[in-house]
Amino acid sequence: MENNLIIYGRNAVLEAIKSGKAINTVYVLSGSNGLHGIIKAAKESGASVKETHGEKLFSLAEGNRHGGVAAELSAAEYSTVEEILSVENPFVLILDEIEDPHNLGALIRTAEAAGVHGVIIPKRRSAAVTGAVYAASAGAVAHVKIARVTNLVDTIKTLKKRNMWVYGADMNGTPYTKVDFGGSGGVALVIGSEGRGLGKLVRENCDVIVSVPMFGEINSLNASVSGGILMFAVRGGGSN
Amino acid sequence: MENNLIIYGRNAVLEAIKSGKAINTVYVLSGSNGLHGIIKAAKESGASVKETHGEKLFSLAEGNRHGGVAAELSAAEYSTVEEILSVENPFVLILDEIEDPHNLGALIRTAEAAGVHGVIIPKRRSAAVTGAVYAASAGAVAHVKIARVTNLVDTIKTLKKRNMWVYGADMNGTPYTKVDFGGSGGVALVIGSEGRGLGKLVRENCDVIVSVPMFGEINSLNASVSGGILMFAVRGGGSN
Repeated sequence: MENNLIIYGRNAVLEAIKSGKAINTVYVLSGSNGLHGIIKAAKESGASVKETHGEKLFSLAEGNRHGGVAAELSAAEYSTVEEILSVENPFVLILDEIEDPHNLGALIRTAEAAGVHGVIIPKRRSAAVTGAVYAASAGAVAHVKIARVTNLVDTIKTLKKRNMWVYGADMNGTPYTKVDFGGSGGVALVIGSEGRGLGKLVRENCDVIVSVPMFGEINSLNASVSGGILMFAVRGGGSN
Repeated sequence: MENNLIIYGRNAVLEAIKSGKAINTVYVLSGSNGLHGIIKAAKESGASVKETHGEKLFSLAEGNRHGGVAAELSAAEYSTVEEILSVENPFVLILDEIEDPHNLGALIRTAEAAGVHGVIIPKRRSAAVTGAVYAASAGAVAHVKIARVTNLVDTIKTLKKRNMWVYGADMNGTPYTKVDFGGSGGVALVIGSEGRGLGKLVRENCDVIVSVPMFGEINSLNASVSGGILMFAVRGGGSN
């Protein structure tokens, strides 16, 4: 998987082509309609295009919906934290132990739309960037830098030394509507897993804990929804 | 389905019991751990509790994850629009042709957490409130009024006559950060399907079209994420 990433689904493959990722082969279902655009873009990008049958695609997509197309990438390309921090006032999303590929993909999709400069995930206890994450992100994975780190707490300390403000999303924090998001050196937002929230040490190392206030009986939101609310709250605090 | 709603999953069943819905039977997997709380609550509510085997639960949940528990409700209970509007300054969510049960459930979960007083869906071209919607809503369906109407445009006109302001979520509208949500008679927010957005007549009958501004390459958000951002923007405009 590390050296031979298979992605699938029309959005995922098209966005990977458009982003200029190194694609070895694009597999298309024989006789499938609506794939002309993808085939044209794939050929222009220099990828080889192979017509294939439904069973092969089913197998490449590991039984998931593929829309008649899959592609083999050279490798899952991760960025470094330094690369993510190379812009002025970086806006960084840190994902603490999101193990479900669908949640990870959904959060990356929202991060891309919110203009996040990069996503940092831990190497252990996190979904890696697989084809399922690509598909769930609607192809957004191709457009946003993703770095994997050994120790999130060390990374958070590094960001703070660079004058970034680190906001952790968890229960019992300050309502996000009362927080003036900002920081002279940029902002990092840390989201934990839906069930467990932030890890203890991660939480302790955040500058501020922010919460989405709950107004109903069920005191939880889907991680990608609360992540979206907070990412756009950070973004919306600016001059847009 | 209309007269005999089967719900499944621990959250969904527990929330249905807690909400006081009329439950005929709760089915629990023989020998399953961690169900004591649900069994106790079910017995206290007057439901009959039956131990059963995995195949029966698999069948009741139609192959979906059930966590060892399912329940049969007397019927899917819908509210009327009048019931939803019976509070002062109602906050109403209108869902225009959300056909995917998972998206419908996710939006209802977020609506409940945002303190929405009721959800209005059309009778046609919308998922109905099935067990899959219950499960995807993490049980929130049990705590929020849901009304089904024949014609959404007529309903929107009714709301406007009652001095409610109707905000439609769609592309090319006013950025939500520039909108002062409010209305002397309450607020309705209309969300369309992820692929098609709002229907033409629905869009034309909204007072204001609002958008979540996009800052990346992929110009779309998951419907439940954009719905969450806008619901909390409406909610956050108040005095909380």
